[in-house]
Amino acid sequence: MNRIGEKFSYTTFGESHGKGIGCIVDGIPAGVKIDENFIQNALDRRKPGQNKFATARKESDKVEILSGVFEGVTTGTPIAMVIFNTNQKSKDYENIKDIFRPGHADFTYFHKYGIRDYKGGGRSSARESAARVAAGAVAKLFLNEFGIHVYSGVSAVADISSNECDFEFARNSPIYSLSPDLEQAQKDLIQKTKQQHDSIGGVVKIKATNMPVGLGEPMYYKLDGAIGEAMLGLNGVKAVSIGDGFDVSQTKGSTNNDTMNKNGFQSNHSGGVLGGISNGEDLEVTVYFKPTPSIFKPQETVDVEGNEKVCELKGRHDPCIAIRGSVVCEYMIAAILADMMLLNATSKLENVKKVYGG
Amino acid sequence: MNRIGEKFSYTTFGESHGKGIGCIVDGIPAGVKIDENFIQNALDRRKPGQNKFATARKESDKVEILSGVFEGVTTGTPIAMVIFNTNQKSKDYENIKDIFRPGHADFTYFHKYGIRDYKGGGRSSARESAARVAAGAVAKLFLNEFGIHVYSGVSAVADISSNECDFEFARNSPIYSLSPDLEQAQKDLIQKTKQQHDSIGGVVKIKATNMPVGLGEPMYYKLDGAIGEAMLGLNGVKAVSIGDGFDVSQTKGSTNNDTMNKNGFQSNHSGGVLGGISNGEDLEVTVYFKPTPSIFKPQETVDVEGNEKVCELKGRHDPCIAIRGSVVCEYMIAAILADMMLLNATSKLENVKKVYGG
Amino acid sequence: MNRIGEKFSYTTFGESHGKGIGCIVDGIPAGVKIDENFIQNALDRRKPGQNKFATARKESDKVEILSGVFEGVTTGTPIAMVIFNTNQKSKDYENIKDIFRPGHADFTYFHKYGIRDYKGGGRSSARESAARVAAGAVAKLFLNEFGIHVYSGVSAVADISSNECDFEFARNSPIYSLSPDLEQAQKDLIQKTKQQHDSIGGVVKIKATNMPVGLGEPMYYKLDGAIGEAMLGLNGVKAVSIGDGFDVSQTKGSTNNDTMNKNGFQSNHSGGVLGGISNGEDLEVTVYFKPTPSIFKPQETVDVEGNEKVCELKGRHDPCIAIRGSVVCEYMIAAILADMMLLNATSKLENVKKVYGG
Amino acid sequence: MNRIGEKFSYTTFGESHGKGIGCIVDGIPAGVKIDENFIQNALDRRKPGQNKFATARKESDKVEILSGVFEGVTTGTPIAMVIFNTNQKSKDYENIKDIFRPGHADFTYFHKYGIRDYKGGGRSSARESAARVAAGAVAKLFLNEFGIHVYSGVSAVADISSNECDFEFARNSPIYSLSPDLEQAQKDLIQKTKQQHDSIGGVVKIKATNMPVGLGEPMYYKLDGAIGEAMLGLNGVKAVSIGDGFDVSQTKGSTNNDTMNKNGFQSNHSGGVLGGISNGEDLEVTVYFKPTPSIFKPQETVDVEGNEKVCELKGRHDPCIAIRGSVVCEYMIAAILADMMLLNATSKLENVKKVYGG
Repeated sequence: MNRIGEKFSYTTFGESHGKGIGCIVDGIPAGVKIDENFIQNALDRRKPGQNKFATARKESDKVEILSGVFEGVTTGTPIAMVIFNTNQKSKDYENIKDIFRPGHADFTYFHKYGIRDYKGGGRSSARESAARVAAGAVAKLFLNEFGIHVYSGVSAVADISSNECDFEFARNSPIYSLSPDLEQAQKDLIQKTKQQHDSIGGVVKIKATNMPVGLGEPMYYKLDGAIGEAMLGLNGVKAVSIGDGFDVSQTKGSTNNDTMNKNGFQSNHSGGVLGGISNGEDLEVTVYFKPTPSIFKPQETVDVEGNEKVCELKGRHDPCIAIRGSVVCEYMIAAILADMMLLNATSKLENVKKVYGG
Repeated sequence: MNRIGEKFSYTTFGESHGKGIGCIVDGIPAGVKIDENFIQNALDRRKPGQNKFATARKESDKVEILSGVFEGVTTGTPIAMVIFNTNQKSKDYENIKDIFRPGHADFTYFHKYGIRDYKGGGRSSARESAARVAAGAVAKLFLNEFGIHVYSGVSAVADISSNECDFEFARNSPIYSLSPDLEQAQKDLIQKTKQQHDSIGGVVKIKATNMPVGLGEPMYYKLDGAIGEAMLGLNGVKAVSIGDGFDVSQTKGSTNNDTMNKNGFQSNHSGGVLGGISNGEDLEVTVYFKPTPSIFKPQETVDVEGNEKVCELKGRHDPCIAIRGSVVCEYMIAAILADMMLLNATSKLENVKKVYGG
Repeated sequence: MNRIGEKFSYTTFGESHGKGIGCIVDGIPAGVKIDENFIQNALDRRKPGQNKFATARKESDKVEILSGVFEGVTTGTPIAMVIFNTNQKSKDYENIKDIFRPGHADFTYFHKYGIRDYKGGGRSSARESAARVAAGAVAKLFLNEFGIHVYSGVSAVADISSNECDFEFARNSPIYSLSPDLEQAQKDLIQKTKQQHDSIGGVVKIKATNMPVGLGEPMYYKLDGAIGEAMLGLNGVKAVSIGDGFDVSQTKGSTNNDTMNKNGFQSNHSGGVLGGISNGEDLEVTVYFKPTPSIFKPQETVDVEGNEKVCELKGRHDPCIAIRGSVVCEYMIAAILADMMLLNATSKLENVKKVYGG
Repeated sequence: MNRIGEKFSYTTFGESHGKGIGCIVDGIPAGVKIDENFIQNALDRRKPGQNKFATARKESDKVEILSGVFEGVTTGTPIAMVIFNTNQKSKDYENIKDIFRPGHADFTYFHKYGIRDYKGGGRSSARESAARVAAGAVAKLFLNEFGIHVYSGVSAVADISSNECDFEFARNSPIYSLSPDLEQAQKDLIQKTKQQHDSIGGVVKIKATNMPVGLGEPMYYKLDGAIGEAMLGLNGVKAVSIGDGFDVSQTKGSTNNDTMNKNGFQSNHSGGVLGGISNGEDLEVTVYFKPTPSIFKPQETVDVEGNEKVCELKGRHDPCIAIRGSVVCEYMIAAILADMMLLNATSKLENVKKVYGG
């Protein structure tokens, strides 16, 4: 399945070294202004080759809208977007054609499908996430109409971790760091790791503000559940939490419950979600990325026939996927919120009557 | 939405204090032997009132199969199961009828739907999870045919945490503890917390063995993604991880990658999932539960009109929802695996030809 | 798959001679008044044993609501309904246990599933349609809020066919005839056919009035498409048409186009649907039922091992399934309209803003 | 919604006068050989401008595959296909920018979405059906592996109707006529109608041979139901029938039932479907098309503000949409059969074991 979302949904296609990648965004209401620069800027935030903390691979990631927009406004019909691939170096992959790169999906794709597009990981490449960003950018244009905003940043590179959450700072940091105090140390660690031909994990935080109450569909497309699927389903993510996250397992109810007074909630341990539904507080999500599996050290592995081989990778890879991954998380969550807005619109008869009268 | 799963799916219904709860399980192949005792035993593992570590509320949770089974075997038609409610004390909820219990979904349901079934949390009650267990038990009967087994247990109560993973021991522990060494300390903490009229968080581990390679649907119904949705969408869960989980954010690629030799994978940091698809290693999932929101201390809150109130709960509640929650996680993951087995069956032409010939 | 609908959806369960049948209705907005008598009356219109024109089999078809309604109003949670079976005579089916009844689904179920619940057709029995009526009755309670009404009746029994469409008359006719002039002739034909131990086909018309403009989701869940699936997917239906239906294939564009003037459409050849979307005119659907496959004449057939046998049916069967089928069509179309109302509510940004402000 | 199908599904995009149209095909098993010429030939059969019986508008309809195929074989990942628009004459539509063309979806799209892409009907244009054909061609490549074939042709132009079903002849007839005897008369009628600036309806037959038993998912994605949705959801189709179709409403059970002997079914009144599931006989579907709504006579209508106007169309239009429509029906049904093949593969445990062992 290559589709996510129920009402606002998108279906992606494309491989790392094929003709291009892209998506069809379905379900967006008519009448939303579409600013192509806004979408392109989103893609530019994710694209590789921007600085020395990311892969040196340069891709222009120029998005082209093929449908669904008429005179600058959505028509209610599906928005297809395509990004043609331009900077593939398939030769980099000739030597690993028949071996399984450790930490990658080569092994599982080969066994699931009996065939494998070995060039750059094919479909399992992180390149696919550009399509998620394009779709999420459309979602953001919709959310803007309601003043809802989604932010992201990197809170930790390995154990260089901060509680600072300066999303403004992150926006302009080359490593999207949330911490003005630790950014330099984080940069240094990334560089050092890169020089060691190794890679490093990281932690990402996402926040949504001005949240309406009521987003999330019980029982099985809850707001937190949908976020869980989107985040854990992203390559390289191995854990996801909402609000106080895994710390809650060590607290007591009397501490963890967010009590209310006439001014509203007095804390936000829940991260803005109660019973799977947004409570109007800021949505707070934390995502844990593993280190990039592509490293430039020799690694033991086997080939498709089971013979032991040494995997020696060429090419250009991010030393820390959490960095560009943070952008993908942000846009995926925007898409979820757009979906939940549409789904929730008919939760009560009173709202349906606002639309149809009666 | 009250349905989960794509091919093997289930739709649940029911409220805490309504006539009953239940589910319709759809998509199970014909020919699977259905042992009603097996399903009842699953429900018995989850049911309240079994010992002093759980709520004193006694519910027999007697499941009744209404359809889909003929002469002890599935027919391919939907299996409806119902558990009639028998031990409701609606009176316990009269005093909180108009107030929002801290940490509960009262506030969000009220605003989403404009109405609220205040009796025991209505639909948002953990009682709904019995239906998940019933559906998951059917899934287990299917998985049994392929030797796939799913286990669960409690690895931590607050900070009393162990790396021991003795699933056999957990099965018979009254608190489903995975640790023979720490079980008593965990029990003591639960009892102490209960006496303080408070509640406590916990951590649950789930493991599946004898996993086939290839389960999980890229890009958007991956094995880990589906688990993310199921787990984070469960009441009280605030974090979920696969394999080494949170720790991967602090490791290097050279450490974290699971290398292979001719005997297979040499480690399982990935928890059995690569690129969202099972790699044949054990599936390992960790789930973090918050403390039960229902505590017996007075808490500040507001009523539906915004007036400040004190919330004083009556009734019977689990001091640590992770315990019974572990059972729910286990059965939900069984259902996901059954679904993924069916979805994956047609991943390659070669397999389709095994079914149809040609 | 046992679920129909996207937002307002229902999943049914149950076999002819099992414990019961029923459904879970999902997606209904909170705040809709639920009149149990209204639902029961709907079932009473469909139930067998009402007069000599239907099967003599008496089933009380008493519906029980298990969830989703609180103090007489929907809460936004799923509505489960069950009808326990009370009047099964499984013995009637002992002699056909191993043979395939001509015109029935015995042969296809047996080959698809490798197993067969032979009692009364099991899941493939028309009895399942009672669950559709229950779900549709809930839909009607929702549509009532907007003044939308759905009617049905029988326009033809075999070739005794009329253009009269007196839905008021049909409501009270024992054969739901739309024609005061021809009702007696239609009754006579049914009686005569019954005496010949045979059965007869018929034609049903369904009409919805006070239709909003805009219902139907391009490209693939159009209003007419959804009706096509619902009607052709009903046992015994072999053709379905919208508006002028079959006749349009013989007309010219200059005749068939519904032109407009300032008073609106000047004709309704289209049956209220243009491009798959309702145009505000009455929705007009025609459904063609085959004769009941169960007849009391000996018929050639084979058994599960391929041996030639004579099929001699016992039991009680409708001579003309179009009659009770008309009720099922009416309620299924009501459910589609409810679904389309919800889906269409977010078709334009302007409507979403009515709900959320902004 | 712009997606159809459950397992083998496709999502289409694009407007008549936008940059292009296309689709993403999802769910095709890995290992199917993809012959691009086969897909292009399918599109060529549908494309306009081929002869004087169709619109004079010439479109090359050159399909480009962007993903999902590696070294000529499917990889199990989504196949995106795009057809760039090349021959748009938007000027033809300037004069009808603000008026509703009778018989078209202009009125309903405008009201549903509050906005309208007036160029060539935008999304509601029959041009979208090229994407359906491309997707269906992929389905056919899959079905070929099992020897299943789907054919189509025109059985009637207005009342020039034949029972001949010569699908070979139709393949090469410029009007896809199924009748060698009546083809000339049908051609003459089309030409005459065109000269009268009018259009004409027609009837299409589709047949699938070498059908497996068991295709179709009870209760709500039955084979006939899915066909009903696909066909009635196609622009211009106002009726659809299976097997003997609407004639069955006039027959008796003793005539209509397809009895069996040891050689199999003795007739095929049912059109190959019993209880919504294929019975192994040929699948027979009939589809009734209305006359092209675009005619070159002046027609009364209104503009978006309700003022009465005369609609005078320019441009190039098919006099009889049934002709090119027949091709679309054929490929849509191929896609349904591919979907049903995949869905049915896990109907019984025995089949799942063929895939996984055990």
